[in-house]
Amino acid sequence: MNLPMVVPDPTLPSRVLVYEVGPRDGLQNEQTVLPVEVKAELVTRLVAAGLKIVEVTSFVHPRWVPQLADAEALLARVDHRGATPMPVLVPNERGLDRALAEGVRHIAIFGSATETFARRNLNRSLEEQFSMFEPTVARARAEGMDVRAYVSMCFGDPWEGRVPVDQVVDVGRRLLELGTYQLSLGDTTGVGTPGHVTALLDAFNAAGVADDRLAMHFHDTYGQALTNTYAALRHGVTTFDASAGGLGGCPYAESATGNLATEDLVWMLDGLGIETGIDLASLVETSRWLAGHLGRPSPSRVVNARPQ
Amino acid sequence: MNLPMVVPDPTLPSRVLVYEVGPRDGLQNEQTVLPVEVKAELVTRLVAAGLKIVEVTSFVHPRWVPQLADAEALLARVDHRGATPMPVLVPNERGLDRALAEGVRHIAIFGSATETFARRNLNRSLEEQFSMFEPTVARARAEGMDVRAYVSMCFGDPWEGRVPVDQVVDVGRRLLELGTYQLSLGDTTGVGTPGHVTALLDAFNAAGVADDRLAMHFHDTYGQALTNTYAALRHGVTTFDASAGGLGGCPYAESATGNLATEDLVWMLDGLGIETGIDLASLVETSRWLAGHLGRPSPSRVVNARPQ
Repeated sequence: MNLPMVVPDPTLPSRVLVYEVGPRDGLQNEQTVLPVEVKAELVTRLVAAGLKIVEVTSFVHPRWVPQLADAEALLARVDHRGATPMPVLVPNERGLDRALAEGVRHIAIFGSATETFARRNLNRSLEEQFSMFEPTVARARAEGMDVRAYVSMCFGDPWEGRVPVDQVVDVGRRLLELGTYQLSLGDTTGVGTPGHVTALLDAFNAAGVADDRLAMHFHDTYGQALTNTYAALRHGVTTFDASAGGLGGCPYAESATGNLATEDLVWMLDGLGIETGIDLASLVETSRWLAGHLGRPSPSRVVNARPQ
Repeated sequence: MNLPMVVPDPTLPSRVLVYEVGPRDGLQNEQTVLPVEVKAELVTRLVAAGLKIVEVTSFVHPRWVPQLADAEALLARVDHRGATPMPVLVPNERGLDRALAEGVRHIAIFGSATETFARRNLNRSLEEQFSMFEPTVARARAEGMDVRAYVSMCFGDPWEGRVPVDQVVDVGRRLLELGTYQLSLGDTTGVGTPGHVTALLDAFNAAGVADDRLAMHFHDTYGQALTNTYAALRHGVTTFDASAGGLGGCPYAESATGNLATEDLVWMLDGLGIETGIDLASLVETSRWLAGHLGRPSPSRVVNARPQ
């Protein structure tokens, strides 16, 4: 395949951590439920392609996410206690019990920046989510786990419209204060634009949260995901969520199409001379293989580009 | 449909000219040849949606671009001498004769930044293209026409690989010296990344060509088009080529998929509070209508987003 030409921008960070969410955030939104062996091969291939962290599954109740009902079986098939962190989404203490039983070392919780989405997705008020997460995070930390916090609906909300940046900052700070090491700020509906990204990051900085505690999680619903990533990269953020082949989205939000495709992100980062450790050709090959199992083409532009 | 929330960035230009290339660069690459009445309705709808300039067709010989063989018939059906400029691509003096016969006021020529593409697309060497264009531009200017110059292959070339920025600047300067008012710098194969965009614009500025003489023309082959646009906008460029619904590409370049979708560009510009005069909802409606005539979905993310 064709590879990007490198023209570095010395004003940008020299290294970025791509946080791969395809096996979890991606597959939980696919109609096709993949056999556990295929999921395990996907995770192994992603690690072989150079991904440095891969979120592999979720301990959300199978009633809500049947696609990931095989979490334990998958964990038994991948090296989740090896050199590459493989976080698992944990919604609550019952999920944490399952994580502890499997010896999982890295978990993620999934908060909401808006009242409506908290009630719909967590069955809690915006305020109640903190008391729900508190014992989960405290026990996880006591067991030596790393805990990441997703914050969903950080830009727009299908029911509430525009989400005030101060509200997002308040939710984020409280999730960090529980003991999480990083926030992943999600544009769950994909509506954000680069000035909004910059304003949100400025507001976090003003509240004492530096860019190195923040990751960005963009969806490409309106074609803005990579541009918003670039705006955040310029601001100083160095961790970006992406999904191999552009899989995924949020099953509870109307109109949330896929995540930013890892390949399209890596094309840009490679072109900018920013180190990720990822082998783009190998990643593309993995996404093409996966598209075969899913029976549909990848939404990634790089994956679908014809070789030159 | 959902519309973007406005979060302005005061460091960016307050107004942008979107140069619509869909009826020409878009349709010349579609398998389906549309009836002239549908093309005329497309142009009329685009103007009604607020596009301030619409390139409508081409006087390239129909042997090469059969999709646009009806140029005169289309011009007879649209208001190309009205308030909205409607440039026509003119490859050479024979094309100029046709343009003059129709009373066309605005034309564009199509140069190459590389030797191989000049030979394949123009049947001239890189050097010979200037003597080919010289009489065309001189006569057009003498007749009071505006002449824009496209420069193709400004980033990568399928045969030559990376294109040196100094070579692009040299070609561009010489095309401006012929009497053209603007260069449209094309990433024909879509391989460019934002650092490359900035480097190319810096090189033009260093050679005495300011951003206000430059337009950018990005293809989304590798998903980089909007991000590259944003990088150029930050640099100071205020004219961007885009194609309604993401139609188009270059028929002579391998692997050149569609142009940046006008809707995805306008979503970003609207979100940044940058004025374009374009009504996004009306534009989306036009692209959905056109997708019906073409019998395939639009590649634009905004056009395909479900209403929230």
